[in-house]
Amino acid sequence: MRENGPFDQLIRSLAKLPGLGPRSARRIALHLLTNKQKIMTPLMQSLEQTAASTKICGTCGNLDLTDPCAICNDERREQHKICIVAGISDLWALERTGAYKGQYHILGGVLSALDGIGPDDLAIPALLERLEKEEYEEIIIALSATVDGQATAHFIIDKLPDHAKTNVTRLAHGVPVGGELDYLDDGTITTALKSRSHMS
Amino acid sequence: MRENGPFDQLIRSLAKLPGLGPRSARRIALHLLTNKQKIMTPLMQSLEQTAASTKICGTCGNLDLTDPCAICNDERREQHKICIVAGISDLWALERTGAYKGQYHILGGVLSALDGIGPDDLAIPALLERLEKEEYEEIIIALSATVDGQATAHFIIDKLPDHAKTNVTRLAHGVPVGGELDYLDDGTITTALKSRSHMS
Repeated sequence: MRENGPFDQLIRSLAKLPGLGPRSARRIALHLLTNKQKIMTPLMQSLEQTAASTKICGTCGNLDLTDPCAICNDERREQHKICIVAGISDLWALERTGAYKGQYHILGGVLSALDGIGPDDLAIPALLERLEKEEYEEIIIALSATVDGQATAHFIIDKLPDHAKTNVTRLAHGVPVGGELDYLDDGTITTALKSRSHMS
Repeated sequence: MRENGPFDQLIRSLAKLPGLGPRSARRIALHLLTNKQKIMTPLMQSLEQTAASTKICGTCGNLDLTDPCAICNDERREQHKICIVAGISDLWALERTGAYKGQYHILGGVLSALDGIGPDDLAIPALLERLEKEEYEEIIIALSATVDGQATAHFIIDKLPDHAKTNVTRLAHGVPVGGELDYLDDGTITTALKSRSHMS
Protein backbone atom coordinates (compact mmCIF):
# COMPACT_ATOMS: atom_id res chain seq x y z
CA MET A 1 0.00 0.00 0.00
CA ARG A 2 1.47 3.33 -1.06
CA GLU A 3 2.05 5.96 1.58
CA ASN A 4 -0.05 9.12 1.74
CA GLY A 5 -2.94 7.31 0.08
CA PRO A 6 -6.49 7.25 1.46
CA PHE A 7 -5.53 4.40 3.75
CA ASP A 8 -2.82 6.40 5.52
CA GLN A 9 -5.22 9.29 5.82
CA LEU A 10 -7.75 6.99 7.48
CA ILE A 11 -5.10 5.80 9.94
CA ARG A 12 -4.22 9.41 10.77
CA SER A 13 -7.90 10.25 11.33
CA LEU A 14 -8.39 7.23 13.58
CA ALA A 15 -5.19 7.92 15.53
CA LYS A 16 -6.63 11.27 16.63
CA LEU A 17 -9.39 9.55 18.63
CA PRO A 18 -8.90 9.33 22.39
CA GLY A 19 -7.09 6.20 23.53
CA LEU A 20 -5.84 5.28 20.05
CA GLY A 21 -2.31 5.61 18.71
CA PRO A 22 -0.89 4.95 15.23
CA ARG A 23 -0.53 1.21 15.88
CA SER A 24 -4.05 0.58 17.16
CA ALA A 25 -5.41 2.91 14.46
CA ARG A 26 -3.70 0.81 11.77
CA ARG A 27 -5.11 -2.35 13.30
CA ILE A 28 -8.63 -0.89 13.30
CA ALA A 29 -8.31 0.47 9.75
CA LEU A 30 -7.18 -2.93 8.50
CA HIS A 31 -10.01 -4.66 10.35
CA LEU A 32 -12.51 -2.23 8.80
CA LEU A 33 -11.23 -2.69 5.26
CA THR A 34 -11.10 -6.47 5.44
CA ASN A 35 -14.69 -6.54 6.78
CA LYS A 36 -16.25 -3.86 4.60
CA GLN A 37 -19.74 -5.31 4.48
CA LYS A 38 -20.00 -6.62 8.00
CA ILE A 39 -18.32 -3.86 10.00
CA MET A 40 -17.29 -0.84 7.95
CA THR A 41 -20.63 -0.11 6.27
CA PRO A 42 -22.72 -0.35 9.48
CA LEU A 43 -20.20 1.89 11.25
CA MET A 44 -20.34 4.49 8.48
CA GLN A 45 -24.14 4.47 8.53
CA SER A 46 -24.16 4.73 12.28
CA LEU A 47 -21.77 7.69 12.22
CA GLU A 48 -23.86 9.54 9.66
CA GLN A 49 -27.10 8.89 11.48
CA THR A 50 -25.70 9.98 14.83
CA ALA A 51 -24.06 13.09 13.37
CA ALA A 52 -27.36 14.10 11.77
CA SER A 53 -29.61 13.43 14.74
CA THR A 54 -27.71 14.57 17.85
CA LYS A 55 -27.69 18.11 19.18
CA ILE A 56 -25.98 19.94 22.03
CA CYS A 57 -28.57 21.29 24.50
CA GLY A 58 -28.45 25.10 24.52
CA THR A 59 -29.38 25.21 28.21
CA CYS A 60 -27.16 22.69 29.97
CA GLY A 61 -24.72 21.50 27.25
CA ASN A 62 -25.89 17.88 27.28
CA LEU A 63 -25.87 15.76 24.11
CA ASP A 64 -29.29 14.56 23.04
CA LEU A 65 -31.68 14.17 20.14
CA THR A 66 -33.55 17.35 21.09
CA ASP A 67 -32.61 20.88 22.17
CA PRO A 68 -33.47 21.51 25.02
CA CYS A 69 -32.45 18.00 26.05
CA ALA A 70 -34.68 15.39 27.69
CA ILE A 71 -33.34 16.30 31.15
CA CYS A 72 -34.00 20.05 30.79
CA ASN A 73 -37.41 19.29 29.29
CA ASP A 74 -38.47 16.84 32.01
CA GLU A 75 -40.93 18.69 34.25
CA ARG A 76 -40.93 15.92 36.83
CA ARG A 77 -37.30 16.66 37.71
CA GLU A 78 -36.55 19.12 40.52
CA GLN A 79 -36.32 22.56 38.98
CA HIS A 80 -34.48 24.24 41.84
CA LYS A 81 -31.40 22.10 42.10
CA ILE A 82 -28.51 22.43 39.68
CA CYS A 83 -25.45 20.24 39.42
CA ILE A 84 -22.28 21.61 37.79
CA VAL A 85 -20.18 18.97 36.01
CA ALA A 86 -17.09 19.16 33.78
CA GLY A 87 -18.24 16.97 30.90
CA ILE A 88 -21.11 15.05 29.35
CA SER A 89 -19.66 11.76 30.56
CA ASP A 90 -19.83 13.06 34.16
CA LEU A 91 -23.51 13.87 33.66
CA TRP A 92 -24.08 10.36 32.36
CA ALA A 93 -22.19 8.87 35.32
CA LEU A 94 -24.46 10.77 37.73
CA GLU A 95 -27.58 9.83 35.77
CA ARG A 96 -26.62 6.14 35.86
CA THR A 97 -26.78 6.25 39.66
CA GLY A 98 -30.37 7.56 39.59
CA ALA A 99 -29.54 9.36 42.85
CA TYR A 100 -29.98 12.90 41.50
CA LYS A 101 -33.13 14.27 39.89
CA GLY A 102 -32.34 17.94 39.32
CA GLN A 103 -30.93 20.12 36.56
CA TYR A 104 -27.38 20.11 35.18
CA HIS A 105 -24.86 22.53 33.78
CA ILE A 106 -21.92 21.19 31.78
CA LEU A 107 -18.79 23.35 31.79
CA GLY A 108 -17.07 21.54 28.92
CA GLY A 109 -13.87 21.01 30.92
CA VAL A 110 -12.09 22.61 33.88
CA LEU A 111 -9.85 25.65 34.15
CA SER A 112 -6.24 24.78 33.43
CA ALA A 113 -3.35 27.20 33.46
CA LEU A 114 -1.09 24.58 31.85
CA ASP A 115 -3.41 23.92 28.89
CA GLY A 116 -4.36 27.60 28.63
CA ILE A 117 -8.04 27.01 29.39
CA GLY A 118 -9.64 30.13 30.88
CA PRO A 119 -13.21 30.85 32.09
CA ASP A 120 -14.31 32.03 28.63
CA ASP A 121 -13.30 28.69 27.05
CA LEU A 122 -15.77 26.98 29.36
CA ALA A 123 -19.51 27.48 29.84
CA ILE A 124 -18.88 29.55 33.00
CA PRO A 125 -20.38 32.82 31.66
CA ALA A 126 -23.52 30.92 30.63
CA LEU A 127 -23.66 29.31 34.10
CA LEU A 128 -23.37 32.65 35.89
CA GLU A 129 -26.09 34.11 33.68
CA ARG A 130 -28.30 31.13 34.47
CA LEU A 131 -27.70 31.51 38.23
CA GLU A 132 -28.28 35.26 38.05
CA LYS A 133 -31.62 34.82 36.33
CA GLU A 134 -33.02 32.05 38.47
CA GLU A 135 -32.67 31.28 42.15
CA TYR A 136 -31.68 27.68 42.95
CA GLU A 137 -32.17 25.98 46.32
CA GLU A 138 -28.94 24.10 45.91
CA ILE A 139 -25.94 24.34 43.62
CA ILE A 140 -24.00 21.07 43.66
CA ILE A 141 -20.45 21.32 42.37
CA ALA A 142 -19.55 17.85 41.07
CA LEU A 143 -16.08 18.47 39.65
CA SER A 144 -13.14 16.09 39.91
CA ALA A 145 -11.10 16.19 43.10
CA THR A 146 -8.01 17.25 41.13
CA VAL A 147 -6.10 20.52 41.48
CA ASP A 148 -7.70 21.91 38.31
CA GLY A 149 -11.17 20.70 39.31
CA GLN A 150 -10.93 22.29 42.74
CA ALA A 151 -9.51 25.54 41.33
CA THR A 152 -12.48 25.67 38.95
CA ALA A 153 -14.89 25.09 41.85
CA HIS A 154 -13.38 27.96 43.85
CA PHE A 155 -13.36 30.24 40.83
CA ILE A 156 -17.08 29.58 40.27
CA ILE A 157 -17.94 30.12 43.95
CA ASP A 158 -16.12 33.47 43.89
CA LYS A 159 -18.11 34.65 40.89
CA LEU A 160 -21.53 33.52 42.12
CA PRO A 161 -24.20 36.17 42.65
CA ASP A 162 -24.69 36.88 46.37
CA HIS A 163 -28.07 35.20 46.63
CA ALA A 164 -26.53 31.91 45.39
CA LYS A 165 -23.41 31.81 47.57
CA THR A 166 -25.07 30.21 50.58
CA ASN A 167 -26.48 27.17 48.78
CA VAL A 168 -23.33 25.64 47.31
CA THR A 169 -22.45 22.02 48.13
CA ARG A 170 -19.77 19.65 46.85
CA LEU A 171 -19.52 15.86 46.55
CA ALA A 172 -18.16 14.10 49.67
CA HIS A 173 -14.55 12.94 49.70
CA GLY A 174 -13.80 9.57 51.24
CA VAL A 175 -13.12 5.89 50.75
CA PRO A 176 -14.76 4.60 47.52
CA VAL A 177 -17.41 1.95 48.15
CA GLY A 178 -15.62 -1.40 47.82
CA GLY A 179 -12.23 0.29 48.10
CA GLU A 180 -9.45 -1.22 50.18
CA LEU A 181 -7.68 1.11 52.61
CA ASP A 182 -4.34 -0.44 51.74
CA TYR A 183 -4.55 0.77 48.14
CA LEU A 184 -5.78 4.29 48.88
CA ASP A 185 -3.57 7.36 48.83
CA ASP A 186 -2.83 9.25 52.06
CA GLY A 187 -4.84 12.31 51.04
CA THR A 188 -8.05 10.31 50.65
CA ILE A 189 -7.56 8.48 53.95
CA THR A 190 -6.86 11.76 55.77
CA THR A 191 -10.00 13.34 54.31
CA ALA A 192 -12.10 10.29 55.06
CA LEU A 193 -10.83 10.28 58.66
CA LYS A 194 -11.60 13.98 59.11
CA SER A 195 -15.12 13.58 57.72
CA ARG A 196 -15.87 10.42 59.72
CA SER A 197 -19.46 9.99 60.82
CA HIS A 198 -21.31 8.09 63.57
CA MET A 199 -22.50 4.62 62.61
CA SER A 200 -26.23 4.57 63.07
CA MET B 1 -29.58 10.39 26.14
CA ARG B 2 -32.21 7.72 25.62
CA GLU B 3 -31.07 4.15 25.30
CA ASN B 4 -31.27 2.29 21.97
CA GLY B 5 -31.01 5.59 20.10
CA PRO B 6 -28.51 6.24 17.31
CA PHE B 7 -25.89 7.10 19.89
CA ASP B 8 -26.05 3.68 21.55
CA GLN B 9 -25.94 2.08 18.14
CA LEU B 10 -22.77 4.03 17.36
CA ILE B 11 -21.21 2.86 20.62
CA ARG B 12 -22.07 -0.75 19.78
CA SER B 13 -20.57 -0.39 16.29
CA LEU B 14 -17.37 1.12 17.70
CA ALA B 15 -17.11 -1.50 20.45
CA LYS B 16 -16.82 -4.21 17.77
CA LEU B 17 -13.50 -2.80 16.56
CA PRO B 18 -10.35 -4.62 17.70
CA GLY B 19 -8.93 -3.30 20.96
CA LEU B 20 -12.04 -1.34 21.90
CA GLY B 21 -14.60 -2.20 24.55
CA PRO B 22 -17.87 -0.53 25.52
CA ARG B 23 -16.11 2.02 27.75
CA SER B 24 -13.50 3.18 25.23
CA ALA B 25 -16.17 3.11 22.50
CA ARG B 26 -18.35 5.47 24.53
CA ARG B 27 -15.40 7.77 25.10
CA ILE B 28 -14.65 7.85 21.37
CA ALA B 29 -18.31 8.36 20.41
CA LEU B 30 -18.58 11.28 22.83
CA HIS B 31 -15.35 12.78 21.53
CA LEU B 32 -16.63 12.48 17.95
CA LEU B 33 -19.99 14.10 18.69
CA THR B 34 -18.55 16.98 20.65
CA ASN B 35 -16.07 17.69 17.83
CA LYS B 36 -18.34 17.14 14.82
CA GLN B 37 -16.64 19.60 12.50
CA LYS B 38 -13.05 19.06 13.49
CA ILE B 39 -12.91 15.29 13.93
CA MET B 40 -16.13 13.47 13.01
CA THR B 41 -16.62 14.90 9.51
CA PRO B 42 -13.00 14.28 8.35
CA LEU B 43 -13.19 10.74 9.74
CA MET B 44 -16.45 10.04 7.90
CA GLN B 45 -15.02 11.39 4.65
CA SER B 46 -11.88 9.37 5.12
CA LEU B 47 -13.86 6.17 5.75
CA GLU B 48 -15.96 6.69 2.64
CA GLN B 49 -12.98 7.49 0.45
CA THR B 50 -11.01 4.48 1.68
CA ALA B 51 -13.97 2.12 1.36
CA ALA B 52 -14.50 3.25 -2.22
CA SER B 53 -10.89 3.12 -3.35
CA THR B 54 -9.34 0.03 -1.76
CA LYS B 55 -9.50 -3.46 -3.21
CA ILE B 56 -8.33 -6.91 -2.15
CA CYS B 57 -5.77 -8.30 -4.61
CA GLY B 58 -7.16 -11.40 -6.31
CA THR B 59 -3.72 -12.97 -6.54
CA CYS B 60 -2.10 -12.58 -3.13
CA GLY B 61 -4.88 -11.15 -0.93
CA ASN B 62 -3.12 -7.85 -0.19
CA LEU B 63 -5.08 -4.63 0.30
CA ASP B 64 -4.30 -1.94 -2.26
CA LEU B 65 -5.77 0.63 -4.61
CA THR B 66 -5.43 -1.72 -7.57
CA ASP B 67 -6.12 -5.41 -8.27
CA PRO B 68 -3.60 -7.02 -8.84
CA CYS B 69 -1.81 -5.06 -6.12
CA ALA B 70 1.36 -3.01 -6.53
CA ILE B 71 3.51 -5.89 -5.23
CA CYS B 72 2.08 -8.49 -7.64
CA ASN B 73 2.34 -5.95 -10.47
CA ASP B 74 5.92 -4.96 -9.76
CA GLU B 75 8.09 -6.68 -12.37
CA ARG B 76 11.32 -5.72 -10.63
CA ARG B 77 10.45 -8.02 -7.69
CA GLU B 78 11.69 -11.61 -7.74
CA GLN B 79 9.04 -13.71 -9.46
CA HIS B 80 10.20 -17.08 -8.19
CA LYS B 81 10.05 -16.57 -4.45
CA ILE B 82 6.80 -16.66 -2.55
CA CYS B 83 6.26 -15.85 1.10
CA ILE B 84 3.19 -17.23 2.90
CA VAL B 85 1.86 -14.98 5.67
CA ALA B 86 -1.25 -15.12 7.85
CA GLY B 87 -2.51 -11.56 7.43
CA ILE B 88 -2.08 -8.26 5.61
CA SER B 89 -0.38 -6.72 8.64
CA ASP B 90 2.29 -9.47 8.48
CA LEU B 91 2.92 -8.61 4.83
CA TRP B 92 3.31 -4.95 5.80
CA ALA B 93 5.67 -5.86 8.64
CA LEU B 94 7.87 -7.78 6.18
CA GLU B 95 7.69 -4.97 3.62
CA ARG B 96 8.75 -2.40 6.22
CA THR B 97 12.03 -4.28 6.65
CA GLY B 98 12.81 -4.05 2.95
CA ALA B 99 14.66 -7.38 3.34
CA TYR B 100 12.38 -9.39 1.04
CA LYS B 101 11.65 -8.61 -2.59
CA GLY B 102 9.53 -11.56 -3.77
CA GLN B 103 5.86 -12.45 -4.06
CA TYR B 104 3.38 -13.00 -1.23
CA HIS B 105 0.38 -15.13 -0.44
CA ILE B 106 -1.93 -14.09 2.39
CA LEU B 107 -3.87 -16.90 4.07
CA GLY B 108 -6.28 -14.66 5.95
CA GLY B 109 -5.57 -16.35 9.29
CA VAL B 110 -4.27 -19.67 10.57
CA LEU B 111 -5.96 -23.02 11.11
CA SER B 112 -7.59 -23.22 14.51
CA ALA B 113 -9.50 -26.19 15.87
CA LEU B 114 -10.73 -24.09 18.80
CA ASP B 115 -12.19 -21.32 16.61
CA GLY B 116 -13.41 -23.80 14.00
CA ILE B 117 -11.20 -22.42 11.22
CA GLY B 118 -10.46 -25.09 8.60
CA PRO B 119 -8.38 -25.02 5.38
CA ASP B 120 -11.36 -23.88 3.30
CA ASP B 121 -11.88 -20.81 5.48
CA LEU B 122 -8.37 -19.69 4.55
CA ALA B 123 -6.77 -19.02 1.15
CA ILE B 124 -5.06 -22.44 1.26
CA PRO B 125 -6.83 -23.90 -1.84
CA ALA B 126 -5.85 -20.78 -3.82
CA LEU B 127 -2.27 -21.13 -2.59
CA LEU B 128 -2.04 -24.79 -3.62
CA GLU B 129 -3.46 -23.93 -7.02
CA ARG B 130 -0.89 -21.16 -7.39
CA LEU B 131 1.96 -23.49 -6.40
CA GLU B 132 0.67 -26.23 -8.72
CA LYS B 133 0.59 -23.88 -11.70
CA GLU B 134 3.94 -22.22 -11.22
CA GLU B 135 7.24 -23.52 -9.91
CA TYR B 136 8.86 -21.38 -7.21
CA GLU B 137 12.55 -21.47 -6.28
CA GLU B 138 11.69 -20.89 -2.65
CA ILE B 139 8.54 -21.01 -0.56
CA ILE B 140 9.05 -19.08 2.68
CA ILE B 141 6.55 -19.88 5.40
CA ALA B 142 6.37 -16.78 7.61
CA LEU B 143 3.64 -17.79 10.06
CA SER B 144 3.64 -17.04 13.79
CA ALA B 145 5.60 -19.39 16.04
CA THR B 146 2.38 -20.32 17.88
CA VAL B 147 0.80 -23.78 18.02
CA ASP B 148 -1.84 -22.81 15.44
CA GLY B 149 0.73 -21.11 13.20
CA GLN B 150 3.01 -24.14 13.21
CA ALA B 151 0.10 -26.55 12.64
CA THR B 152 -0.90 -24.46 9.62
CA ALA B 153 2.68 -24.58 8.31
CA HIS B 154 2.80 -28.37 8.58
CA PHE B 155 -0.64 -28.73 7.00
CA ILE B 156 0.50 -26.64 4.02
CA ILE B 157 3.77 -28.57 3.64
CA ASP B 158 1.83 -31.86 3.60
CA LYS B 159 -0.43 -30.65 0.81
CA LEU B 160 2.29 -29.16 -1.37
CA PRO B 161 2.78 -30.62 -4.86
CA ASP B 162 5.89 -32.82 -4.98
CA HIS B 163 7.96 -30.42 -7.06
CA ALA B 164 7.52 -27.73 -4.37
CA LYS B 165 8.28 -29.80 -1.25
CA THR B 166 12.05 -29.42 -1.40
CA ASN B 167 12.13 -25.62 -1.51
CA VAL B 168 10.27 -24.75 1.68
CA THR B 169 11.95 -22.56 4.32
CA ARG B 170 10.73 -20.96 7.54
CA LEU B 171 11.77 -17.89 9.53
CA ALA B 172 14.57 -18.46 12.07
CA HIS B 173 13.70 -18.82 15.74
CA GLY B 174 15.97 -17.15 18.26
CA VAL B 175 16.64 -14.21 20.53
CA PRO B 176 14.97 -11.02 19.18
CA VAL B 177 17.45 -8.29 18.29
CA GLY B 178 17.74 -6.08 21.39
CA GLY B 179 16.10 -8.76 23.54
CA GLU B 180 17.38 -9.54 27.02
CA LEU B 181 17.96 -13.20 27.82
CA ASP B 182 16.56 -12.72 31.31
CA TYR B 183 13.12 -11.83 29.95
CA LEU B 184 12.92 -14.56 27.31
CA ASP B 185 10.94 -17.78 27.74
CA ASP B 186 12.75 -21.11 28.02
CA GLY B 187 11.51 -22.36 24.64
CA THR B 188 13.07 -19.45 22.76
CA ILE B 189 16.38 -19.77 24.61
CA THR B 190 16.50 -23.54 23.96
CA THR B 191 15.82 -22.99 20.24
CA ALA B 192 18.35 -20.17 20.03
CA LEU B 193 20.95 -22.38 21.73
CA LYS B 194 20.29 -25.30 19.37
CA SER B 195 20.53 -23.07 16.29
CA ARG B 196 23.69 -21.27 17.51
CA SER B 197 26.11 -20.21 14.80
CA HIS B 198 29.83 -19.40 14.60
CA MET B 199 30.74 -15.75 15.08
CA SER B 200 32.55 -14.67 11.96
